[in-house]
Formats: sequence, C-alpha cells, structure tokens
Amino acid sequence: MSELHPSAISINTINPNVKLMEYAVRGPLVIRAAEIEEELKHGVRKPFDEVIRANTGDCQAMGQAPITYIRQVLSLALRPELLEVVNCPSDIKERVRTLLNGCNGGSLGSYTGSLGIEFIRRYVQQFLGERDDVPSDYRDIILTTGATQGIKSILQLLNCPVEEETNWGLNINELKRAIDEAKEVCIPRAIVIINPGNPTGQILTRANMEEIIKFAYEENLVILADEVYQNNVYEDRIKFNSFKKVLVEMGEPYKNMALASFMSCSKGYTGECGLRGGLVEIFNFPADVKTMFYKSLSAQVCPNTVSQAAIFCLVNPPREGEPSYELFMEEKTKVLKSLKERAQLVHEVFNSFEGFSCTTIQGAMYAFPQFKLPPKVIELANERGMPPDQFYAFELLENTGVCIVPGSGFGQKPGTYHFRTTILPKIDKLKVMLEKIKSFHTDFIAKYR
Amino acid sequence: MSELHPSAISINTINPNVKLMEYAVRGPLVIRAAEIEEELKHGVRKPFDEVIRANTGDCQAMGQAPITYIRQVLSLALRPELLEVVNCPSDIKERVRTLLNGCNGGSLGSYTGSLGIEFIRRYVQQFLGERDDVPSDYRDIILTTGATQGIKSILQLLNCPVEEETNWGLNINELKRAIDEAKEVCIPRAIVIINPGNPTGQILTRANMEEIIKFAYEENLVILADEVYQNNVYEDRIKFNSFKKVLVEMGEPYKNMALASFMSCSKGYTGECGLRGGLVEIFNFPADVKTMFYKSLSAQVCPNTVSQAAIFCLVNPPREGEPSYELFMEEKTKVLKSLKERAQLVHEVFNSFEGFSCTTIQGAMYAFPQFKLPPKVIELANERGMPPDQFYAFELLENTGVCIVPGSGFGQKPGTYHFRTTILPKIDKLKVMLEKIKSFHTDFIAKYR
Repeated sequence: MSELHPSAISINTINPNVKLMEYAVRGPLVIRAAEIEEELKHGVRKPFDEVIRANTGDCQAMGQAPITYIRQVLSLALRPELLEVVNCPSDIKERVRTLLNGCNGGSLGSYTGSLGIEFIRRYVQQFLGERDDVPSDYRDIILTTGATQGIKSILQLLNCPVEEETNWGLNINELKRAIDEAKEVCIPRAIVIINPGNPTGQILTRANMEEIIKFAYEENLVILADEVYQNNVYEDRIKFNSFKKVLVEMGEPYKNMALASFMSCSKGYTGECGLRGGLVEIFNFPADVKTMFYKSLSAQVCPNTVSQAAIFCLVNPPREGEPSYELFMEEKTKVLKSLKERAQLVHEVFNSFEGFSCTTIQGAMYAFPQFKLPPKVIELANERGMPPDQFYAFELLENTGVCIVPGSGFGQKPGTYHFRTTILPKIDKLKVMLEKIKSFHTDFIAKYR
Repeated sequence: MSELHPSAISINTINPNVKLMEYAVRGPLVIRAAEIEEELKHGVRKPFDEVIRANTGDCQAMGQAPITYIRQVLSLALRPELLEVVNCPSDIKERVRTLLNGCNGGSLGSYTGSLGIEFIRRYVQQFLGERDDVPSDYRDIILTTGATQGIKSILQLLNCPVEEETNWGLNINELKRAIDEAKEVCIPRAIVIINPGNPTGQILTRANMEEIIKFAYEENLVILADEVYQNNVYEDRIKFNSFKKVLVEMGEPYKNMALASFMSCSKGYTGECGLRGGLVEIFNFPADVKTMFYKSLSAQVCPNTVSQAAIFCLVNPPREGEPSYELFMEEKTKVLKSLKERAQLVHEVFNSFEGFSCTTIQGAMYAFPQFKLPPKVIELANERGMPPDQFYAFELLENTGVCIVPGSGFGQKPGTYHFRTTILPKIDKLKVMLEKIKSFHTDFIAKYR
C-alpha cells in the first residue's frame, strides 16, 4: 500500500519561522487574483473582464516602456560578436566594451566577485558621491540581486527580528512607543526607513530625517535606509536627500553612525523589476564586521551579471553630448512626468470618495488612502478571522478584479483602515480602476451600513 | 572628538552564525589570489605572470564560448522591437515571442510569480519527464536565481544545520558514521548528494544510488540531489540517472520518499554561471509543506527574468529540423568533447606525479587528486593554525599563481590530503598549469622532506 514516508518531511518538522512569516504584497489576495485570472480564461462569468494588479509596483507589467539605453547595452553585451556588425550609437558600444572588459573572460556568462564587479562598484561610488556631495567608497558598495537580497543580507548580519521594525511610523512618539514594545521581545538593532515612502508616498522633510537620526543615535540603532524610490519625486519644490547626506551634514557625533542604504533599478524611471538589479552602500561599519559581512555574501556566490549590468547603466547614463543622450532624456522625462500626473490624479480622485482621505503622493509609486468601515463589516471580518481591510480587499477583488494590498499587511493605527494601490496603470486604465473602486465602495458601504 | 558610535553595530552583536560560516571555494585563498592579481597589475615581480583561477567551475571565464542559441534568445528578448527588423533564424524569433508572451506586460522587465514563469515551468516538466521517463508536474517545479538559491531555500525550509551533511561520503559505512555523529548535535533531516560529484568527479552507480536511497529511507531523510552536472558525463558507457528516476523505479516504499533535485544553466555545455539560472523539482512533499515553502519563496520576490529565460533555453533547445539545430549541436558537442579530453588529460597527468593519485574523472568539471605531505609540512601548518593542505594551497598560489581549493574545505578522511582543481582552462593553459603544479610539487616536497 502506498503511503507517504512518515517523518522525513512534515509540517511539524519544518522551520517554524517559515510557518509564521507573512508577506502581504504576495499573499492570499494575490493567489486568489491569479485564480480569478485562470477562471476568466476558462470562461467563468464575472462582473469584470480582467484583473487589475494594483498590488505591486510592477512598472513594465503595467505598460511602462523600458529605457532604450539600458536594453541596448544589455542586449548587445549578451551578443558581443555583433559589436562590429550592428549599427548602434557609439556610446552604447563604448558602454558594452567597458562592461565586458570588466567581466571575467569578457563574458556576462562568468561568475563575478561576491560583492559584484569592481569597476561597476566604482561607477556607483561616483554616482552616489555626485548625488550626495559626500564622498563614497566603492569598497563599501555591494551589488545585489535586487534590493531585496541586499536588505535580507544586512538583516541576517544584524540578526534582526524584522517584524517589529517594519511597522514603525515616523512620528517620534510613535517610534518611542514602537521601540519600547520591541524591547520587550528583543534587543532592537536597526531601524528601517523607506524614503520616499512605501506604502505612504511621503518624502521625509529634512527636519524629520534629523529627528529620526537623533532617535537612532540615542537608541544605538543602525539606520537601514530603503531609498529605492529616490528618483520618484513628484513635487518640484522637494529634493530627495539621502540619509547618508543628512547624517554627514549633521556633523559630530551623527556622521559616525552606522548606516546601510539600498537602491534598485526596479523603480524610478527605469522600472526594470524583472532584472533584479540592486545595490547597497554601507557606511561606518567597523572593519571586522565588514569582513564578516563580505564573507557571508560569498556563500550567495554572486549577483546575476545582467542585474549588475543594469545597475551599471543606472549609475552611468548617457551624458550630455553623447549620441544616446537625447533619446534617454526624452524617455526618462516622459516616464517621470506621466507618473507625476497619475500621482496627482489618484490623490484627487480618492479624496472625492465618501469616507476616503488620501495624503498627497509626494513620491514613490503608491497611494495609501484611509477609509471608514461600518461596524457590521468589522464584526463580519472578525467572525471570519481576518482584518476588516483584508475582508474589504477580497470583496473588492471578487467584485471588480482590482487587486490591492490591505493596510493591515503593512501596519496601521488600530481602528484605522487603509489599502495600498500602485499608481502604475496607464492613465485610461487608472481612471477605469478608480471608477470601479468608487462604485464598489458605494455599494459596499450601502450593503453593510 | 570623532569616535564610532559604541554599540549600534559591532563584531559582538552581529549574527554569530555569520562569524562561524566558512566557504572554502570563495575563502581566504581566493581573496589572496585577487590581491596577487592587483600586485601583478602594479608591477610587483612574481615567479609567474598571471593567476590561474582553477578554484571555481567558471566555464566562460576560462574561455568556453557561450552557446549562440541561448544568447540570441536572451539578447532579442531584451530588445523585442528588433523582432520585426533583424535577420535571425525563425526558431529564435519563435522562442522570443513565446518567452515574452509568458511575461507580464510582454517584458523581461516585469516581476514574475515567486515560483517563476508558469509556462517555463511547464517546459521544465516536459524536459524532466523526457529525461527520466517518469512523469513530472510543473506545480512541483520552481525556478531560482542559480541552483544555490534553490538549495538555500530548501535548507531553510527543512531547518537544516548543513555542516554535517556536506561532509558525507558515499560509502554506506561512512554515511552511518556521519549520521551517528550528526545525531549528537541535531536531528538529521536531509542528505545532500552531488551527482555527478563535486569535488570528486564520480558518477554514482545505480547500485550505489539504491543503497543511498535505502539508507535515507531507513533514517527518514529527505534526499537533496544536486544534479547540476548532469550534462557533464565523460564516459560513453555511463548514463546519468537522476535520483528521482531511480527512486521511482525502485517502487514501494521508496517511490514515495521526499526528494528535491537541483539543476542549473551554469554547468553542462551551457556554462552560463553569471546568468544564475536554476531550478528545483520537489517530489513527494506533503501539500501543507509545499504551501509553506511557496509562501516562503514569495518573500524573495522573484527570480531574475533573464535567468529564467536561460532555463527556458536549456529545457527547450533547438529541435531536429529547426534552423538553429545544426549550429546548436555543433557547439554543444564541441564543448562536451573538449571537456572530456581535458578530463582524461588531467587524470593521466596527475597520476604521473610522484605521490599523487587521482581517480577517473567520470563527470562534473573537477579533479580531486590525493597527495602525500611530509611530516614537516604538517607540523608547520599546525603551528600556523591551518590545515596542511591549505598551507600547501597558499604556497602553490604564491609560487605559481595557480589557485585551487584545499580538500579540507570539502572534508576528507583524517590524515589524507587533496585539492580540487577545475579542468576548465583551455587545453594549452591547462598543460601549462599542470606543469606548474608538477614543478612546484617536486620543489615543495624536496624542501620539506
């Protein structure tokens, strides 16, 4: 008789942390969204004819065109034998030669150092130095397979239980409350700040950044600055400041604080999520800790060469006077201008809904509106053992095909309800999506009032 | 006065496991090799003029040419606007269209599902089914950023302390000794077997595989089959058998055992190490464990699309009659034939050295010769606090520029000494390298006899 081997692997013997973990952005709602797409394909009738995936910041899936410069470099770097034959701008060919010259055996098919290709790290040094007007050191810069892998590596190094930190708001009283709560279960080692903010879309003021830095100093926390949206800034009067820049400019004793900053080619005007290009700059990490960190990275072998090449393009764009400059600027400006328009539209429309309030979307690529829910919904959700905004999100998905992430997946003040939606659908589809949410919301509230 | 912030991050607060970990293939020898390369660049005089990196199986860094088919598909998939314009074989264009059709928004720049693109997983299903003549299910196949990430994910799921398992030999008595030793410190959950073998180059006989399977059954171990070298087989009379195939063909009760098998585009005839394409097939994992496993993968976002596209090419090569078939077969055959010649050469030459013995290199891309060391070397190494074969490896590197991995990095019988070298340098350089090792070894033994 066939039976599974009794104890080689079972739900009781696997890693208990795997059982506990939750990731709302790719959780049960997204699984259900995929099922609904399958159902639609097989002719199941729904009150809508497509799923709108507004749950992840997946730019190109939503129709954003890739930047030609990046694709030209990557494509040709994979086929260097075409360098002499194809007709393509000289600066592209120069970039490809530089890139391959830095690869072992002149090929993207070779392993690289565990920290990434050295000459690309030197370009990153220059890029960050120019951005912040503060010196960088390529020896403190590592390339990663997406910013996610960089963040995971740092968290692993710090031995962090991340659950506490990710919920933190940016009001100093709220930070104090959160750290006191954290201290009951662990020794807090780090504070993670996402700026421009995900899911909230805010860009921190310099004064607020200084407060956070002082707080981190007093509490002996390493600052982990997720700055992947640094190119997504939609207000002309606002300039992105990196935490490193602010901390250095604050002088003693803050300029000696330990910090790690994360950047990516998935967001901004590039939107190359699938290529998984990321980088980490560490700052003021003690030498012995760096040695251990770099050793731990070696066990991950090396980041994908194509993702490293994408970072190379990001930090080494066409310069004025180069043949690709004009097209590059045109494409970059077009993407950022369109995102800005959509940020404004989403903000306005959400604020016109009954019971909705949505703060200005200053940056990043999300709106995080707050909305009121009738007591009946809260009761019903409790009965089903799910947060009320998750109940809302499932109903929204089943009725309209719009997939968003409930605020409870990120953390929110008790008794408040939010969801995160990207602003990425193309303008026409975005309008349709907002109309669908409005109509659903009106019906939903009427039904449960 | 400037001083580092005292306790935000220090060697005493970081993850102790990071301090403990060792990875010989990318350890201190490799760091020293990189330093020597820098020294050579800056004109430091050495008894050699280049470092030969025989420490990793880095095919293209050693001059192996990429397979044109793969590069054509990847390159064009990154520039789909060229599909209508460029002159390239129709089967390449068809592959690119199929690939992009499976990507969100038709772009490699979009995120994919956490388990990889579904239609590629279906191609893997077909590929594995044909290879083993045993059915596969794409729902049990995940795409990963290199086989390394797949292995790490499975080890994390199983909550494995891997240190014990990796040392295991394949003699059943040795396995029993190792598991008894492991039981003193943990509950062993899995056995990792690399076949064809790294570093040893052996291909397990079917009888040996059956013994191992029976052993794993008795000990309730999940079998983790690292089968990334399955295309690197150099003896005509030997056929690669996957563990899944053997286990299924053994019938009850073995065919119900839990297994995970790993495959990659870094080895074999493709040698695309830098692209980090990997896949895992799990087999007989309980449904609830699979749910947890897939959930844990979602926190890694998704594998790089280019690495997934490389796996797509690997499992969907040009078929007979297609325009790319002839060139593909010519390139594939050339790579494998040349590796076979080098495997034979390295084996013969090592066995001609005094005090060396090297088993037949049946598969994979390494030789793992055993050699004798005089007592004086062992004494000296002990004084310096390093294993004798590491001392030997450092001396070899400093004197000849040849970088290999000492056997102590993999585990070996106490009192025996080995090193691992790849067979990847091109034939002329390989001969030079072997000559250098021979001459060094003769001098070294004479010096310490």
